[in-house]
Amino acid sequence: MSPNRPPLSRKLDGLRSSAIRDLLELTSRAEIIGLAGGLPDAQLMPRERIARAAADALRGSEVLQYTESRGWGPLRAVVAERESAGLGRAVPVEEVFVTHGSQQALALLAEVLLDPGALVVVEDPAYIGALQVFRAAGARILAVPLDAEGMRVDALADLLARGERPAVVHTVSTFHNPGGVTMSPRRRRDLAALADAHGFWVIEDDPYGELWFDRPAPAPVATYSPAVIRLSSASKIISPTLRVGWMVAPEPVCRAVELLKQGADLCGSALTQQIAADLLADRTWLAAHIDLVRATYSDRAKALVHAVRDTFGDRVACTDAEGGMFVWATFTDGTDTSDLLATAVEHGVAYVPGAAFAVDTDYRTALRMCFTTSDAGRLEEAVRRLAGAHAAASAST
Amino acid sequence: MSPNRPPLSRKLDGLRSSAIRDLLELTSRAEIIGLAGGLPDAQLMPRERIARAAADALRGSEVLQYTESRGWGPLRAVVAERESAGLGRAVPVEEVFVTHGSQQALALLAEVLLDPGALVVVEDPAYIGALQVFRAAGARILAVPLDAEGMRVDALADLLARGERPAVVHTVSTFHNPGGVTMSPRRRRDLAALADAHGFWVIEDDPYGELWFDRPAPAPVATYSPAVIRLSSASKIISPTLRVGWMVAPEPVCRAVELLKQGADLCGSALTQQIAADLLADRTWLAAHIDLVRATYSDRAKALVHAVRDTFGDRVACTDAEGGMFVWATFTDGTDTSDLLATAVEHGVAYVPGAAFAVDTDYRTALRMCFTTSDAGRLEEAVRRLAGAHAAASAST
Repeated sequence: MSPNRPPLSRKLDGLRSSAIRDLLELTSRAEIIGLAGGLPDAQLMPRERIARAAADALRGSEVLQYTESRGWGPLRAVVAERESAGLGRAVPVEEVFVTHGSQQALALLAEVLLDPGALVVVEDPAYIGALQVFRAAGARILAVPLDAEGMRVDALADLLARGERPAVVHTVSTFHNPGGVTMSPRRRRDLAALADAHGFWVIEDDPYGELWFDRPAPAPVATYSPAVIRLSSASKIISPTLRVGWMVAPEPVCRAVELLKQGADLCGSALTQQIAADLLADRTWLAAHIDLVRATYSDRAKALVHAVRDTFGDRVACTDAEGGMFVWATFTDGTDTSDLLATAVEHGVAYVPGAAFAVDTDYRTALRMCFTTSDAGRLEEAVRRLAGAHAAASAST
Repeated sequence: MSPNRPPLSRKLDGLRSSAIRDLLELTSRAEIIGLAGGLPDAQLMPRERIARAAADALRGSEVLQYTESRGWGPLRAVVAERESAGLGRAVPVEEVFVTHGSQQALALLAEVLLDPGALVVVEDPAYIGALQVFRAAGARILAVPLDAEGMRVDALADLLARGERPAVVHTVSTFHNPGGVTMSPRRRRDLAALADAHGFWVIEDDPYGELWFDRPAPAPVATYSPAVIRLSSASKIISPTLRVGWMVAPEPVCRAVELLKQGADLCGSALTQQIAADLLADRTWLAAHIDLVRATYSDRAKALVHAVRDTFGDRVACTDAEGGMFVWATFTDGTDTSDLLATAVEHGVAYVPGAAFAVDTDYRTALRMCFTTSDAGRLEEAVRRLAGAHAAASAST
């Protein structure tokens, strides 16, 4: 910045751009197979159904005006109905708040729930969007590791026993980004019990729960305690262009978020919210649509995992493909995935190194692979290229 | 909140709901003529043109995906072209950042430009959405009054001479909300010169500038200094449902805002941004559309001002109707507009008392009237009802 321009806030010194986004800019060339992104497949999104809903919504002029900060009433009603089914209780519409994607719910909740310096516990590896928000809010951050059954709730209990008092514990409970794993029902109950006993909030960030492959995901953590605030979204099951996410939270939390939403951006788009309400309320159609997404992603995920296991054998450990959008793999031969990335890109494949998601643990031999936007053949080719890069890198050391 | 729920942040204690929004909920009954709102007229919004743009955008699948945090490239290019014409210089696309309405630009800029406790100078009366944002950011706030030529820049100079060092000065330079006035060209130059000399940012918040009635608004403050960040929006000239606002700012500011936008909500809606780009690029159509909005609002504003002057004579001083959406009026007989409001609502008319916008000055005899959503006959009836309320209140004291 030129010396005669006014300064920017010192807060910015601590913020970093998302490593994934910066990387994506480098690897968007067509000849590279991108396993690095985190995007749902636009080809699977219901373009014509959205166009029909848009045309219907635009027959009235109400859709052109500002809407409620909490979200358009009929959309909140549809979400309340869906969430009631998922949570096994009647969720009143007053406990539903519509946000500009669930990322905005995270950002507003960080303001509502955290005083400066408050402790937030995240999972390790962590969802980068949550780390960004909690760091920007000036929180102190501690991490507990994941294993095959999701968050190590015993490690959280240890941390509480040492006297740590989190204000918030954040979890991507189902089909973790980036970890690929799902928290077991036992641990969900344990986490909720800890929240009740110690008086902290749990933010259950669940954009992927409906994208299960062979069997439905366990009941949400939010079924076990009112201290659990549940976030979900239409982005992964319909389309991110709607920018419709939502939060199910106790009324006082919704009222506090409303105050902040007014300052943050007044309200969402009445147009995209009416489209979302139309599609979410069309239950038979939506069920069939989500089935198609599930079946497609399931085929791709299984092809990727099969190719990894087939190609690398015991040199790579890899999560099962149970749902969501990501597979997490770890080289057992000590390969550093940050070091390998440049060679991989030369061989025509990109991924995100585990280090990008690491909080305390050393994930330098791990990588995240997104299977949503390539078909089975292209995923198999990606793994061949990765093996070529691995062989080349091994030969040169 | 029940005692066994975790607590909310102490920051919330200082935040208040928007007085206007709370009031609107009380006065939305059909029999009340609402001068209290701040909404553009949905009947004037180009519903069919938007529907056509939506249908066109939804012919491709790219529109369904996440878009760039800075805004969809072609939309930024169209905005850069329009702003180049307004600012009289070639605005590079790197200096354009699309936000979810210009309110989001304000909220992100408060994060980017302010350290905790930094001084922000606002106008008095102030735009409530700006006050909310600066208060939430923990800023210290001082106010300088408005007069018929807009911000009293001499009062700002006095404040600087006393040693105050603002980080940001916020102005609604043209067709002020709520004050109705426009900053004179001379003061625009003086404000920019003060910013250059003292090293503060100016946020020029300009959603109404194109809604002039008899002659175009003066050149933006941003034409006079690179320390001026200019905000504008499609909400008042096309439709708020697009949630498309924008900022023209030096590149380092745009890059800093981008980091925060990723955490705040990832990105805007590719669908509404493509619709906005289509309409903003359709210059001949847009010029004719804005002419229609101008002519309609001009008729309404003049009818309102004429009725107020005709009915109240010298008991009310009222701004001229030169553009925008609001008239600011002041009772010269000492009538307290907060006290009068209940009686006014009984008589079937609602407005916002001046006290709702007051920072330091006592605006208890002032009121804001919005003329956008009622035709001339209804506005005249509103003034008759206001006169009835005033007479009734005067008689009872």
